[in-house]
Amino acid sequence: MHRTRVRVVEDALDANNTIARANRDDFDRAGVKVVNLMSAPGAGKTTLLERVLGSLDGVRAAVLEGDVQGSLDADRLARLHVPVTQLNTDPGFGGECHLDANMVRSALPEIALGEIDLLVIENVGNLVCPAEFRVGEDVRVMVSSVAEGEDKPLKYPLMFRTCELVLVNKVDLLPYLDYDVDKFLYHLDAVNPGVPRMFMSARTGEGVDAWREWLLELTMGVRA
Amino acid sequence: MHRTRVRVVEDALDANNTIARANRDDFDRAGVKVVNLMSAPGAGKTTLLERVLGSLDGVRAAVLEGDVQGSLDADRLARLHVPVTQLNTDPGFGGECHLDANMVRSALPEIALGEIDLLVIENVGNLVCPAEFRVGEDVRVMVSSVAEGEDKPLKYPLMFRTCELVLVNKVDLLPYLDYDVDKFLYHLDAVNPGVPRMFMSARTGEGVDAWREWLLELTMGVRA
Repeated sequence: MHRTRVRVVEDALDANNTIARANRDDFDRAGVKVVNLMSAPGAGKTTLLERVLGSLDGVRAAVLEGDVQGSLDADRLARLHVPVTQLNTDPGFGGECHLDANMVRSALPEIALGEIDLLVIENVGNLVCPAEFRVGEDVRVMVSSVAEGEDKPLKYPLMFRTCELVLVNKVDLLPYLDYDVDKFLYHLDAVNPGVPRMFMSARTGEGVDAWREWLLELTMGVRA
Repeated sequence: MHRTRVRVVEDALDANNTIARANRDDFDRAGVKVVNLMSAPGAGKTTLLERVLGSLDGVRAAVLEGDVQGSLDADRLARLHVPVTQLNTDPGFGGECHLDANMVRSALPEIALGEIDLLVIENVGNLVCPAEFRVGEDVRVMVSSVAEGEDKPLKYPLMFRTCELVLVNKVDLLPYLDYDVDKFLYHLDAVNPGVPRMFMSARTGEGVDAWREWLLELTMGVRA
């Protein structure tokens, strides 16, 4: 029974990877860089996008917004005059807890790939399953809020291990938390040694310039 | 294809419910009350248990600790001299994002049901899938950290809709956040009208007496 189950799961992940490669081919042909942005619920993904998407000079950005239900984040981002496509996962299984490659593929007809340089896919807020499903992205960026505590890399290792950049958000709250930055970095390096990390506050704007520059460099291939 | 998939999922949930009922029967026979404690990662479930489990006079409590990997929380709770059983979900699918009834059932031989009055099942930190799987609990309690923002009931409606108590945690951070309590309550009542809610800070201890009393009342059947 267990053996059967594992095989089914492997088949599902294999199919996902096939579709993710097809997505990636489409993105590459159009010259679009794709970021898969992931975090726990309420870590600040949308606010970090609000901080930078309106000021990426020379980069035409769009967002694919993944949510179980509703379009609160898409509505916020649309105010920046950036094209936003909403993808709701609630038709499946009382709400899928992640985006997969086929969901992203189903949204591609709504996205004018020929008219953009950067697509940010804002995943469902969850530190487990989004890490298991490639969607065709070039890079994975995760947001870790200091309000969540410094033990999270050890508790959700796959997420921290498979990302190319960690945005440590809400540093304005550090004076009011029992959060040991050194301990967080120790845990982070235990699961993903040397992964680039940036400290910032989406609320105050502190540190977000580095995130903007990183996106510019990713898209334009040169440091801004 | 979609039709087939939905049927498979329904079968899985049906099997889960069957096993959940078997768990519930075992708990009832032993006279053990069971709480399924859920939240996003880092909302404070473990700290809220640390605050109350050592001081539940007359109640013999135990914890079943669900994590993708590791035993950090179980180690913390064991210091309270409360029996803790660790359940790791990582043998499945790169880490299951929730506990299900069969996982809980597999742990029951490790728990001395005849010697306890209250079992708290601390679920995996996730606002989506844990809400979809009954595990045999009497009641579902969820923790919502104010650091996550006031929009969460609208974004993760199943979780907020299927719980019997909401612990709004980290209220000591309110002066430093753009969090509108009235808006949160409006959203909460939109998805689960009138659900009992308690405001507290696991860090400072403010408000945790109400949570302790609630557990005593649940277990002893009288207000402490």
